Amino acid sequence: MFTKNNYPGAPVIVGKEHVQSGVLQAIVINSKNSNVATGEKGIQNSRDICRTIGESLGIDEKLVLPSSTGVIGVPLKMEIILPACKKAKSLLKPGNLEEVAEAIMTTDKRKKISFRKIKTKSGEGTIYGIAKGAGMIEPNMATMLCYILSDVSLPKGTDLYSILKSSVDQSFNCLTIDSDTSTSDTVALLCNGLSGESSIEDFSQALTEICIDLTKLIAIDGEGATKLIELTIKGAQNEIQARKIGKSILNSPLVKTAIYGGDPNWGRLVMAVGKVFDEPIPFESLQIYFGDLPVKEASPETLKKLSEYLKNNTEISLNVMLNIGTASMKFWGCDFSEEYIKENAYYTT
Amino acid sequence: MFTKNNYPGAPVIVGKEHVQSGVLQAIVINSKNSNVATGEKGIQNSRDICRTIGESLGIDEKLVLPSSTGVIGVPLKMEIILPACKKAKSLLKPGNLEEVAEAIMTTDKRKKISFRKIKTKSGEGTIYGIAKGAGMIEPNMATMLCYILSDVSLPKGTDLYSILKSSVDQSFNCLTIDSDTSTSDTVALLCNGLSGESSIEDFSQALTEICIDLTKLIAIDGEGATKLIELTIKGAQNEIQARKIGKSILNSPLVKTAIYGGDPNWGRLVMAVGKVFDEPIPFESLQIYFGDLPVKEASPETLKKLSEYLKNNTEISLNVMLNIGTASMKFWGCDFSEEYIKENAYYTT
Repeated sequence: MFTKNNYPGAPVIVGKEHVQSGVLQAIVINSKNSNVATGEKGIQNSRDICRTIGESLGIDEKLVLPSSTGVIGVPLKMEIILPACKKAKSLLKPGNLEEVAEAIMTTDKRKKISFRKIKTKSGEGTIYGIAKGAGMIEPNMATMLCYILSDVSLPKGTDLYSILKSSVDQSFNCLTIDSDTSTSDTVALLCNGLSGESSIEDFSQALTEICIDLTKLIAIDGEGATKLIELTIKGAQNEIQARKIGKSILNSPLVKTAIYGGDPNWGRLVMAVGKVFDEPIPFESLQIYFGDLPVKEASPETLKKLSEYLKNNTEISLNVMLNIGTASMKFWGCDFSEEYIKENAYYTT
Repeated sequence: MFTKNNYPGAPVIVGKEHVQSGVLQAIVINSKNSNVATGEKGIQNSRDICRTIGESLGIDEKLVLPSSTGVIGVPLKMEIILPACKKAKSLLKPGNLEEVAEAIMTTDKRKKISFRKIKTKSGEGTIYGIAKGAGMIEPNMATMLCYILSDVSLPKGTDLYSILKSSVDQSFNCLTIDSDTSTSDTVALLCNGLSGESSIEDFSQALTEICIDLTKLIAIDGEGATKLIELTIKGAQNEIQARKIGKSILNSPLVKTAIYGGDPNWGRLVMAVGKVFDEPIPFESLQIYFGDLPVKEASPETLKKLSEYLKNNTEISLNVMLNIGTASMKFWGCDFSEEYIKENAYYTT
């Protein structure tokens, strides 16, 4: 699954071709430069990287998924990358996924890894996910970069894409750091089947848990973030409504700065629900909680408690009940601090 | 014209009733408290204010437009406001609109005033506009608070609402400071006709100029802003497309922080155009200029010039040519600095 941004990076363009067959054997990733808006030359560079990796590993170049992340609009330094690709096979070793999780970081401050063991017919298998991402994050269909590997197989005819899409829709697509959608978003899921067949249910559940873990790790690590926000929208008419309102709240700079400052300024949440013009929610039915504290018409005493709740917790739970339907969804985001500004004001200079 | 936010303030609810007749004789405004999300009591308070002002001035309460701006969700301090309303008539004096422009400021750092003289059949008239607004500004139909007064009249049967709407659509509705739509947005236009009749064309043009002046004054004064951004979208298929892409660029925190930091990170503009999923623009046809400097595939030397352009100017002109149609529009916004965060992290506390 790739970004919906209309200017996908060269690796995304090449990657979309390479995943057509449904089989991948290698992923090659570089950070610091996204190879986006680099024209025909950028696409050629991405193909050259896949070919060189393919030659080094002895596999077809179409079995290689390329990924790049970093600055937009700058040509890749091929004189550094190609010699490294030639040495790829000699550098492979078992268990170095942690090193990969570290190597793909850009403005990330932490590695993002999650895994689950699941039962298979012949014993036990593993699903292992790594991700990166800290800014330019409002994923649509996928997130910045995420690779999920598993040694299980699934019953013949299983629609793996639908399983992945369902997990992504409940996790990465419920995440926003700064409302900006990256040109490089990629989620890849590879299964080699070495540990035998698992049930679709077990696999789906473990996959969704991993995706939510990684989503939260990205939110916690949002550029300049000091707090993880978990927002639950309850009682929506449908998922579309929940999604519009959830994103409106988590993308509001005024909500994000209030949470950063421990300011119990709940009117900003009302504003953010109300600015979804095409989804009006009766004010009477709207309920808002910070943690388990209701905020509407809060007394001065409650306002003090709300402020303490925001100040004393690094994981903030917002609960917004629309009370007009039965759909519920969770969303993740982070607060907005001076550090975000500093980090992004001088990114390339 | 009032906010499209689904939770309009009590004064907006009362004001919508009072403008039904098409005639207003007074406007009563308080700042620091918006009387929003205050329930039935808030509406009653707004009515009580209009009635008291009406009694003081000897006019029907329905000829009074109420406006409030400031914190959401806190009851008005009626014990201060009502006694002041009783004294309204004795405090009126000619030419104190500047004091009004100052009195309505909240986080604004500057008064916002613009006026034009226009010809009338019997000599000369004036259109005089004041506004306030610095945050929670992505107006939809109107802006925070704006009052435009004129002593001219227009030919019988003129649709004044359409004239105002056209001016607002070219000015306040092309403005965004932080993507958040206020619950109090109001633009009121009052004409008393004392200086005689002007032509519709002259009036329209002067009104639009005033609205654009005030829009730019609001953008310059955006919370924490150090730079005014004027964005021109050229060659769009239609106004809807221009508007979606213009807002996407000016609302992007990554574009705003790059301009703040003087970082010639033009890839972020590409990203912001590309994240308007339903309006794909061929990458080949897209042209982007900072001032008169083209940015795509900029050489290191051009990047240096771009950075100097951003650093040495407080009014930044961005020109984005889509080259797929004939529609052109201008938009206004500002950069995003640490001051915005500071100002909004501790707003009510």
